[in-house]
Amino acid sequence: MTELTISPVRGLPELRAGDDLASMIAERAQLEDGDVLVVAQKAISKIEGRIVRLDGVEPSARARELAGDGDPRRIEVVLREAKRLVRTRGSLVIAETSHGFICASAGVDASNAPEPGTLVLLPIDPDASAAGLRAWLHELTSREVGVVVSDSFGRPWRQGTTDVAIGAAGVEVLRDLKGERDPTGYELRSTVIAIADEIAGAAELVMGKLDRTPVAIVRGLDAARDGSAQELVMPAERNLFT
Amino acid sequence: MTELTISPVRGLPELRAGDDLASMIAERAQLEDGDVLVVAQKAISKIEGRIVRLDGVEPSARARELAGDGDPRRIEVVLREAKRLVRTRGSLVIAETSHGFICASAGVDASNAPEPGTLVLLPIDPDASAAGLRAWLHELTSREVGVVVSDSFGRPWRQGTTDVAIGAAGVEVLRDLKGERDPTGYELRSTVIAIADEIAGAAELVMGKLDRTPVAIVRGLDAARDGSAQELVMPAERNLFT
Repeated sequence: MTELTISPVRGLPELRAGDDLASMIAERAQLEDGDVLVVAQKAISKIEGRIVRLDGVEPSARARELAGDGDPRRIEVVLREAKRLVRTRGSLVIAETSHGFICASAGVDASNAPEPGTLVLLPIDPDASAAGLRAWLHELTSREVGVVVSDSFGRPWRQGTTDVAIGAAGVEVLRDLKGERDPTGYELRSTVIAIADEIAGAAELVMGKLDRTPVAIVRGLDAARDGSAQELVMPAERNLFT
Repeated sequence: MTELTISPVRGLPELRAGDDLASMIAERAQLEDGDVLVVAQKAISKIEGRIVRLDGVEPSARARELAGDGDPRRIEVVLREAKRLVRTRGSLVIAETSHGFICASAGVDASNAPEPGTLVLLPIDPDASAAGLRAWLHELTSREVGVVVSDSFGRPWRQGTTDVAIGAAGVEVLRDLKGERDPTGYELRSTVIAIADEIAGAAELVMGKLDRTPVAIVRGLDAARDGSAQELVMPAERNLFT
């Protein structure tokens, strides 16, 4: 097993709808075959125009009720993004998104939005976003890279967020060790590692939240595979908690 | 933000109770100030003798009932390690440990056990294990390193496990960005990043499960702080799910 390096892509400008992020990355990084690019969800959402202005939002009665002292327009946007509310406490809403992810505010976020008074929504299809970026990077650089789209999710029983994969292309997502044997001969029965989530979390360590570094390169993984972040969604029949 | 490198410590022998892991690491790695060592829980548990032989275990009626087709002695050990059962389905038991962690089998595991017919338990106090290893490494090398003890935990709504921190010393565990501002001036209200969990997951990417590489070095983090994995345990009043 070789060493892994994780490096931020520096000098990206503030991103806007329609920006060609692949070209911006290709100009600033020397990609190698097998690299995995981790791109923060906010960057993808911005170039895809997944921004809502609070100005034009008319909150429903339900949104007003949930919002309490908070902004009912924000809650209205959360409700529109949610397929199902999982828990609410005050203005904290934990919801299932159209993609099947369960997270705070259905992924709707005001931090790092393009300007005050706007909210950023999750990409409509983050796996497709990853695949598109990967394909365009291949056009530009002839390199075969994997792409992970990351977002910061909370966990029910652990404080703080970790970055996880909400989109993936050309990268191993789940590594199933079932049937392999440990050094004493014990057969691993149900060891499946969420590689793509660990990659996303590792990249967060160099990206930071505040300094406009939404892309990092993970080099040294042997993880060039077909993979989709949909593999990470727990099927309803295995969900023991909601 | 600098580049991060993650490298496995190679050539460690199979570990036994009483082994001096710090010396084994110091002989095999050139540590630098600020490095974070990630050590798999199994390695700590083995040197601390946290091993149970199934032979001597007498299963209770409750263990027999939960075990179904499985080994009731294994379930008995799980029940003894559990402070509280959170969910059960068949022989899958999700439990809260004495440390407050919620995980499958209360952390009891048969894979990578020292020999067939044995189970590995979590360390009694993984923060203390980390602190002890850190202090002894400082004695041996004069280096100030952080230590994270990692284990693989499942997540309620996501497939696969990721490695998280169950013990920590000399390393930032939670990074609280509350009160800081993003580039547009938006104040981050509740952004707390579980740095130590992301470090554990990153290290897992080079450690593997099968090839006896229970220690990795993460270099390039600016994360030398006081920290304890107990900070990661969600307080009961904020737990919305069990």
